[in-house]
Amino acid sequence: MVDLVKMGEQAVKAKYDLQKMQEADKNNALSRIADLLVEREAEILEANKIDVTNAEAAGMAPGMVDRLRLNNERIAGMAEGLQQIITLPDPVGEVLDTFERPNGLKIIKKRVPIGVIGIFYESRPNVTADAFGLCFKSGNAVILKGGSDAIHSNIAITNTIRKALTACGCNPDVIQLIEDTNRETATAFMKMNQYVDLLIPRGGAGLIKAVLANSTIPVIETGTGNCHIYIDEYADLKKAIPIIINSKTQRIGVCNACESLVVHKNIKNEFLPMLDKALKEKKVTVHGDAETAAILTDCILANEEDYGKEYLDLILSIKTVSSLEEAIAHINHYNTKHSEAIITENQAHAERFLNEIDAACVYVNAATRFTDGFMFGFGAEIGISTQKIHARGPMGLKELTSYKYTIYGNGQIRE
Amino acid sequence: MVDLVKMGEQAVKAKYDLQKMQEADKNNALSRIADLLVEREAEILEANKIDVTNAEAAGMAPGMVDRLRLNNERIAGMAEGLQQIITLPDPVGEVLDTFERPNGLKIIKKRVPIGVIGIFYESRPNVTADAFGLCFKSGNAVILKGGSDAIHSNIAITNTIRKALTACGCNPDVIQLIEDTNRETATAFMKMNQYVDLLIPRGGAGLIKAVLANSTIPVIETGTGNCHIYIDEYADLKKAIPIIINSKTQRIGVCNACESLVVHKNIKNEFLPMLDKALKEKKVTVHGDAETAAILTDCILANEEDYGKEYLDLILSIKTVSSLEEAIAHINHYNTKHSEAIITENQAHAERFLNEIDAACVYVNAATRFTDGFMFGFGAEIGISTQKIHARGPMGLKELTSYKYTIYGNGQIRE
Repeated sequence: MVDLVKMGEQAVKAKYDLQKMQEADKNNALSRIADLLVEREAEILEANKIDVTNAEAAGMAPGMVDRLRLNNERIAGMAEGLQQIITLPDPVGEVLDTFERPNGLKIIKKRVPIGVIGIFYESRPNVTADAFGLCFKSGNAVILKGGSDAIHSNIAITNTIRKALTACGCNPDVIQLIEDTNRETATAFMKMNQYVDLLIPRGGAGLIKAVLANSTIPVIETGTGNCHIYIDEYADLKKAIPIIINSKTQRIGVCNACESLVVHKNIKNEFLPMLDKALKEKKVTVHGDAETAAILTDCILANEEDYGKEYLDLILSIKTVSSLEEAIAHINHYNTKHSEAIITENQAHAERFLNEIDAACVYVNAATRFTDGFMFGFGAEIGISTQKIHARGPMGLKELTSYKYTIYGNGQIRE
Repeated sequence: MVDLVKMGEQAVKAKYDLQKMQEADKNNALSRIADLLVEREAEILEANKIDVTNAEAAGMAPGMVDRLRLNNERIAGMAEGLQQIITLPDPVGEVLDTFERPNGLKIIKKRVPIGVIGIFYESRPNVTADAFGLCFKSGNAVILKGGSDAIHSNIAITNTIRKALTACGCNPDVIQLIEDTNRETATAFMKMNQYVDLLIPRGGAGLIKAVLANSTIPVIETGTGNCHIYIDEYADLKKAIPIIINSKTQRIGVCNACESLVVHKNIKNEFLPMLDKALKEKKVTVHGDAETAAILTDCILANEEDYGKEYLDLILSIKTVSSLEEAIAHINHYNTKHSEAIITENQAHAERFLNEIDAACVYVNAATRFTDGFMFGFGAEIGISTQKIHARGPMGLKELTSYKYTIYGNGQIRE
């Protein structure tokens, strides 16, 4: 078993070293790392080949093997990702507030790195470089725990990054990989709140649940999206169809894809047949309530479970409602607080929906697919938070920071 | 056992009702509650008498019984606390950012309540009203779990608040008290992340550790303060003495009290005798390293454990160092990330200390005792966060909020 305490101590030491680095030096290191990833492509691909061969021998599904596989283009993509992070402004040191107290104390609230961040992820080895890049630029040391399937790839990528860091005179422990892939090591790591300030699990519901159940480190939940679109009685139906088709089918395996429609009964007779045609063209199966099934051909009757499901597939559930209020209550009951949309031309309805829906991102007349760090202009993201603590929605560099109060006195004591 | 799921569902319903309330209506309810607490003083004191009698019969230490005891003045204090919260601005709805994307999407980032907050606390029954007031004003429903010692008092206070809320037409479930006081109920409650968005434990290290170990709800750690004052070689020693005495002795049982001094060796011969006299006047015992013991009479030799200890008593540890760097490393190793101070007239040393010390509040030439919501001008606080996620330092109304993105489109889809 790896020495997790030693790794924790090294990460803490590295965090202090990193926090003293200037932006230009961090950018220089990122550039050097990007170059070395491309230079050492052959070694990385060789390591990846072991993972892919093992996975295929173990009968891994082709879709999963594809996530695991690296090639020239994907390594170039990792390097390009780091180059993009160089162009993003360093958030550290930003003055967030300044105030003076009646006793003369001057208080400055400043943005600072979080410290040590743990990232749990599954089989995509490019996460190793992407997650490191965002943490490094925002001044955080990172300890990575990737999936066992990708272990040889992750070791090769991590070693390349550490080599480049050393060459730049940086402490290479700003990135450490837990090389043990057994569950006991993962669980032990989740208890290391003495060293690790934040844990971000990136992966499926099973991984996130395990982390929440075991971690004593603060966790940011990411990624589960049971996203709805509500077609209001005042919707422009011609606007609704492309938004729904885009949200459901542009990419089906992502957390900001639409999984469920809520349709006002006053428009169902006109709208559902229009929708049916568009969905059939894209081979989307509908699981609808009785009122939907009475209108749509080939509609499977939805059960309670359907409304709570993130299909990540060419399936869409449909629920009809009698009022905006009922739509809001339905969505707030079943959603995962990710992204929700209303299609309406009625301003009052739009505002009520925006205010009363409990989600990170609430849209009027736009696709749910825009909940994304790049689409928001953050440049990149470490994940999409579905909880309310610390950060909500797309998490970019700023969301990887905390703050501190620095206070200037001249002898003040408390009366 | 109480029906925690039912309580969770009621809290979620109440959170949506509360989020629709205007500031004036919330203030009106707070005022009515403050009045009713005073009106029903006799009932509350009678309930408190049962708790105090039980505690005394069980042999509770007098200091603890004092924390538990209510009287006219303390009930008036609770009412006054609520009146003060009325004067604080409602943080909900504040626009934090507005930006437009190249595709015409207009994104508004708005402050929103967190939702449902759980508060764990120990034997001070006034926390029931204080914590409720802050959560209510910031739009959050609250589920309270107080100490078993104070259960009759907490029930009487909660019922009074609920009665006043009902009289105002508010959903009384914005405050619910877990009336079971057994540990199993508490542990089960910590797993209710489906209903509860944030858990804040207010109490000793044992309570906080138990919550961190068991909770699947995001937790904000509060309150542990192993606070240091570093007396630099460039300190104005006459400034240092009152700051140290104030930080150590003004109130000894609080988290922002000073527990440890770090003294530069170049000034130890001049400074320590001056300090000794001042400490002896206040009956403070010193646990110091060998260099300190060589100068101070009656100095107990400090062991490793001393430097990690939050004494909450008239005891102070002292460590001598040879450099600012050594002081920073010592403090970052032993502190609890709460409040740290440097006494120096050297601006460069001050800035290095402010930047490199990892703590919520870092002071130059002032007492650590100022880390407090009232002292910071926040008006009140729910606690002092010692973690880096979500909020750091004193947590007022703003720190009890999250945000959401509301996005206005006109048919945008993702290419």
